[in-house]
Amino acid sequence: MPLSPDQQSEIDEARAKPRETLRCVAPGLEAALYTAHPVLDHGFVRVIDYMGDDSAICQAARVSYGRGTKSVSNDEGLIRYLMRHWHSTPFEMCEIKLHVKLPIFVARQWIRHRTANVNEYSARYSILDREFYIPAPEHLAAQSDINRQGRGTTLEGETAARVLEILKADSARAYDNYLTMISDEGQQGLARELARMNLPANIYTQWYWKTDLHNLFHFLRLRADAHAQYEIRAYADVIGQIVAQWVPIAWRAFSDYRLGGAQLSAPELAVLRRMLKGESVSEEGSGLSAREWREFHALFD
Amino acid sequence: MPLSPDQQSEIDEARAKPRETLRCVAPGLEAALYTAHPVLDHGFVRVIDYMGDDSAICQAARVSYGRGTKSVSNDEGLIRYLMRHWHSTPFEMCEIKLHVKLPIFVARQWIRHRTANVNEYSARYSILDREFYIPAPEHLAAQSDINRQGRGTTLEGETAARVLEILKADSARAYDNYLTMISDEGQQGLARELARMNLPANIYTQWYWKTDLHNLFHFLRLRADAHAQYEIRAYADVIGQIVAQWVPIAWRAFSDYRLGGAQLSAPELAVLRRMLKGESVSEEGSGLSAREWREFHALFD
Amino acid sequence: MPLSPDQQSEIDEARAKPRETLRCVAPGLEAALYTAHPVLDHGFVRVIDYMGDDSAICQAARVSYGRGTKSVSNDEGLIRYLMRHWHSTPFEMCEIKLHVKLPIFVARQWIRHRTANVNEYSARYSILDREFYIPAPEHLAAQSDINRQGRGTTLEGETAARVLEILKADSARAYDNYLTMISDEGQQGLARELARMNLPANIYTQWYWKTDLHNLFHFLRLRADAHAQYEIRAYADVIGQIVAQWVPIAWRAFSDYRLGGAQLSAPELAVLRRMLKGESVSEEGSGLSAREWREFHALFD
Amino acid sequence: MPLSPDQQSEIDEARAKPRETLRCVAPGLEAALYTAHPVLDHGFVRVIDYMGDDSAICQAARVSYGRGTKSVSNDEGLIRYLMRHWHSTPFEMCEIKLHVKLPIFVARQWIRHRTANVNEYSARYSILDREFYIPAPEHLAAQSDINRQGRGTTLEGETAARVLEILKADSARAYDNYLTMISDEGQQGLARELARMNLPANIYTQWYWKTDLHNLFHFLRLRADAHAQYEIRAYADVIGQIVAQWVPIAWRAFSDYRLGGAQLSAPELAVLRRMLKGESVSEEGSGLSAREWREFHALFD
Repeated sequence: MPLSPDQQSEIDEARAKPRETLRCVAPGLEAALYTAHPVLDHGFVRVIDYMGDDSAICQAARVSYGRGTKSVSNDEGLIRYLMRHWHSTPFEMCEIKLHVKLPIFVARQWIRHRTANVNEYSARYSILDREFYIPAPEHLAAQSDINRQGRGTTLEGETAARVLEILKADSARAYDNYLTMISDEGQQGLARELARMNLPANIYTQWYWKTDLHNLFHFLRLRADAHAQYEIRAYADVIGQIVAQWVPIAWRAFSDYRLGGAQLSAPELAVLRRMLKGESVSEEGSGLSAREWREFHALFD
Repeated sequence: MPLSPDQQSEIDEARAKPRETLRCVAPGLEAALYTAHPVLDHGFVRVIDYMGDDSAICQAARVSYGRGTKSVSNDEGLIRYLMRHWHSTPFEMCEIKLHVKLPIFVARQWIRHRTANVNEYSARYSILDREFYIPAPEHLAAQSDINRQGRGTTLEGETAARVLEILKADSARAYDNYLTMISDEGQQGLARELARMNLPANIYTQWYWKTDLHNLFHFLRLRADAHAQYEIRAYADVIGQIVAQWVPIAWRAFSDYRLGGAQLSAPELAVLRRMLKGESVSEEGSGLSAREWREFHALFD
Repeated sequence: MPLSPDQQSEIDEARAKPRETLRCVAPGLEAALYTAHPVLDHGFVRVIDYMGDDSAICQAARVSYGRGTKSVSNDEGLIRYLMRHWHSTPFEMCEIKLHVKLPIFVARQWIRHRTANVNEYSARYSILDREFYIPAPEHLAAQSDINRQGRGTTLEGETAARVLEILKADSARAYDNYLTMISDEGQQGLARELARMNLPANIYTQWYWKTDLHNLFHFLRLRADAHAQYEIRAYADVIGQIVAQWVPIAWRAFSDYRLGGAQLSAPELAVLRRMLKGESVSEEGSGLSAREWREFHALFD
Repeated sequence: MPLSPDQQSEIDEARAKPRETLRCVAPGLEAALYTAHPVLDHGFVRVIDYMGDDSAICQAARVSYGRGTKSVSNDEGLIRYLMRHWHSTPFEMCEIKLHVKLPIFVARQWIRHRTANVNEYSARYSILDREFYIPAPEHLAAQSDINRQGRGTTLEGETAARVLEILKADSARAYDNYLTMISDEGQQGLARELARMNLPANIYTQWYWKTDLHNLFHFLRLRADAHAQYEIRAYADVIGQIVAQWVPIAWRAFSDYRLGGAQLSAPELAVLRRMLKGESVSEEGSGLSAREWREFHALFD
C-alpha cells in the first residue's frame, strides 16, 4: 500500500473541509482530489490542485476570435476544431498539479518534459525510504529481438526467478549499506548527498509536478504510446483517466486526434489517393522505404 | 469607464455563484475575482482564476526538503529563506490567470516575457473597438536629456496641447479609415487582417495572460521598476497590489529582497567593506567606472 | 531596396574575411551568409550565424542510441526515422540566428513563438525609419465570405485604389506627426517612448531572432501553411529556402512528413480502412461532423 | 583516463581539418575544440560547437538600442552595463554545445535547468559502461552538523575506508548482476530498459548539452556556488574556465556582478546606510531576523 496511515489521515482531513470559491470548478476532479491513485507496486498519482475546465478552453479561444466564435454552435465543436488545427494556446489555460511517487528511472524519462514545474524530494537533505520497484512477473520481459528499445516475451521459470532474486537482493543490500554509511552511531556519518549515490535507479522518489493541459497532452501522446516503456506508460494511463474526469470534451478530442490518430507523410498520402482510386500499389512503386512501407501497412491492415 | 453594462452584468453574474471546492482558497483574491481594476484611460486587469497561495509554496518546499524543513519554525521564515537564496521552484507552484486590456505598444513590451500562456483578441477575425490610449496631461513627458530611454519634465502649454491634438486626431482618422476599408457597403470590404495595419500602436487590445508566481515576480521586478516605461508600470503596480492580496507573505519577501533590494558587484562590496572600516574611498581609488560609481552612490546617499 | 549603401558595404566587408574554424561548416549557408534575402516591399531576412548541419542531428541521435544506431544504414534513413516518430531533441542541436526586417503586425504574430531569442530595435531609444508596408496590388484582398480569418478575391479598380491611397496617406501623416512631436526645434520634444504610439502597425521594425531547428520547423509548419496570413508566409517561405540550403536532408524529411503530410484522426482512419476494403462510406455513416467530413475529403479528392 | 584510444583518435581527426567560415570565430574555444577536459575520476567536458563571442553580444544590443548605443564608448562598458541592469537577451545570442560525461546523480541535478537542449545516452537501447564515480579521499565528507544539505569535515581512518569499500563493492556487484541479467547465454536476456534499474546513481552517463550564454550563466551562478554539491561544482568550475576563454569580457562582468556579487534586501540596505553614517547597529535594532543578520555579517566581516 503506497500510503502510510498518517498520510491517509492527512488526505481525509484535507477532503473534509469544502470551501467556497467563485472560480470554475471541475466536479470530476473534486471527487477524487488528494486521493492516491496507485501505480506500480509502491507508486501513486494524486491531484493536489487544478485550474480551469472545458469551459476555460472555450473562454480563452473566444477571447482570441472575438465575435468570430459565435458561429461555432457549441463547445465540443470548438474544442475539436482547436485540436484538429493545432491551436494549442487555449489548452494552455488549464493547469494541474500532481503529487507523484515514482521510481528514479521513470523520473529520469519524465523530467525530459521541460515545460513543467517540479519540486522533488531531495536526498541531499533527507533520507529516502526503503521502497524499490520490483516488476510484477508479467512485466518481467526479455529484450526484444526486433526492436532495440522494446521488450519481447515474458521471462519465465528459473530465469525470471533469478532476475527477481537479483533485483530484490541488490536493492536490499544497497539500502542497508546506505543506512550504514549515513549512520552516526560510533562513527561520523557520511554526507547524505554522497551516500545516496549507492542507491539503484529502482528506488522510489516523489515530486510535485505542475503543467498545463497542452503540455500534459504532449506528455501523454509520447508516454501513453505503445512505444513508451511500460513503467512510465502505467503513470500516463492513470493520468489519462484523471484528465478524462477533468476535461471530458478535450479528452475525447485528444483521444480521436492524437492518441488514436496518425501522422501521414506526403508520399503516404499519395499512395492512399492511388489506392482509393482502385489502383493496386506495390512496395516498389510506392516511393516508400521498406521501413516506411511496413509502418504504413501496419496502420491500415 | 472600461466596461460596458453587458460586461459588468456578466461579472456580477459570475460573482453571484459561489461553489464548493476542496482546493486551497485565497480569500484576498476571491474578494475581487472577475472585477476590473482600471489602468490608464481605458485599460483594466481582472483576475479570472488562480491556483495556490502562500501555503502552497511551503508545501512544495517541504516536499523537496522532506523532514529537513521541520526545523524552519514557520511559513514566513521559510518563504523568506527561499526568496533570499533564489530557490525559485516552489514559487512556480502558484499560478494566476489575468484578463488584461492594454494598448498595443504596452502589449509589445509585455509579450517579451516568454514563460506565460497567452490568448489575444485577434484582429484577423474580429473588428477592434474604437479605443485609444491618450496620455493624461501629467504623463505627457519630454524626452530625457540624460537618459536615452527615459522621460524628462512634463510638457506644458501649447506644446502639450499640440501633441494631444495630434494623438487624438491621428487615432480618429486611422480608425475611421479602418472602418471605411473593411466596410462592404457599396464595395468589397478589405480583409480584416490587412485593414488592421492602418491602426496605430495606442489602440487597445486585450488578452488572457496566465503565468506562475516566480515568473510573475520576474515580470514585476522589471516592469514595476523605475526604469520601466510609465504605461507598463501602471499595469505592474496594479498587479503588484493583486499579488499582495493573493500571497501576502511571498509579496513581503519579494518587496524586501527584489523590489527594494539591490545587486552589488564584487568591486562594490570591496568598497563597502573599506568604508565600513572607516576608510574614505574616492572614485579614483574605488576600482569602479564613473557610471558604476554614480549608481553606487545613488544607492547609499 | 531594403539595404542602404552603408549596410551593403558592411555586408561586403563581413563576407570578405573568411576565417579558419574546426567546427562543422554548412556550405549552403556560407554561400549567402549576411546577404539580405528581400521579403515584401522593404523587408529582408539575413543569416547572421548558425550552428550544426545534417550531420550534427545524426551525431546527437547516435549519442542517445549508442551502438544501437549502427544498424541504421545512413544519415537520411536516421533523420527520416527521427522525424516520423517525433523524436525532436536531435533537431534542437542545430541553431540559426537571423536578422529580419518586418512590419510590426507581422512581428506581433511572429513573437508568439516563444522558444526563441530576440533582440528588437527599440523605439524607446531610437527613431524609427520612414518605411511602411504597402501591399502589392495582387495581395490587396477582400475579406473572405466563407473563412472569418481568410482572404477572398483581390480588390480591383476604384476600391483597390482607395485602399492604397488611405494606407499611404495615413502612414505618411502619422510619420510626419511622429517627427513633429519628437522634434526639439522651438519646443521640448516628446519622449520617443510616447511618440511611437502614433505609428501604425505597417511600419517596419527589425530584430535578431535566434532559434533551434526543431522550433524553426514548428514555426514553418504553422507559418508556411496555407492558412497563415500571406505577409508572414512570405517570410516563412524565404526561411524555408534557407533551411533547404542549410540541412537539405532534414528539410526533405520535414517537407514529406510535416509540410506535405496530414494528421488523421481515429474516426478518419476508420473511414479510410473501410474505403480501402471497397466500402462506399457516406457522410452520415462516417461518424465525422460536416466540417470534419469536408476537410477529410479535401485531402483525398 | 576518461577517453579510449578510439575516442582520442576521433578527436585528433576532427581537429586536423580546419575549414573556412565567414562566421565569427572565438579563438579561445577553437584552441581546445573537441578536447576532453577531465572532471572527477572518469568524467569530462568537451566543447563540440559554439555560436558567437563577445562581439555578438554587443551586436545584438546595438540592434536593440540603435543609434543610442553609439554613446557607449566600448564593448566592455556596454557588456558590463547589460550585466548590471539584468538586460539578459543579448547574452542569449551566444550558444554553446558540450559533450559531458557525468555520474547519474549529478545529471539529475543538472537536468533541472530546463532551458537547454539535451541528448542523453539511452540505456534502453544500449549497454552502459562499467564506470562508477568513487570520491577521492579528500571529498569523502561527513554530514554537516549545522547545514542540513552540506558537508562537514572529511572522513578519515576506518570510517573512510569502510565507505570506499562499500561504494566499490556495491557498484561492482550491481554491474556484474546487470550483465548477468541481460546476458542471452543459456537464457533469454532481460530487457535493457529493465536491467538498468539495478544500477546505482554513481554510474556514469553522457550527453550532448546545448544552451545559450544567459542560461549558462544562470547555471554557473547556482552550480559554481559554494552551496552547490562539490561534484556538480567540479563541472561548473571547468565550464567557467571554458566560458572565460570563449567570451572573456562577458565572463569578467559575470564574475564581478554575479559570482562575486551579492543581492542585498531593503532592510539590509537600510542597515548599511545607517552604518555608513557611523551609527552602530545591533541585531535587535536591525530589523533583520537572526538568520538574516548572520548572513549579512558574513558578507562584510
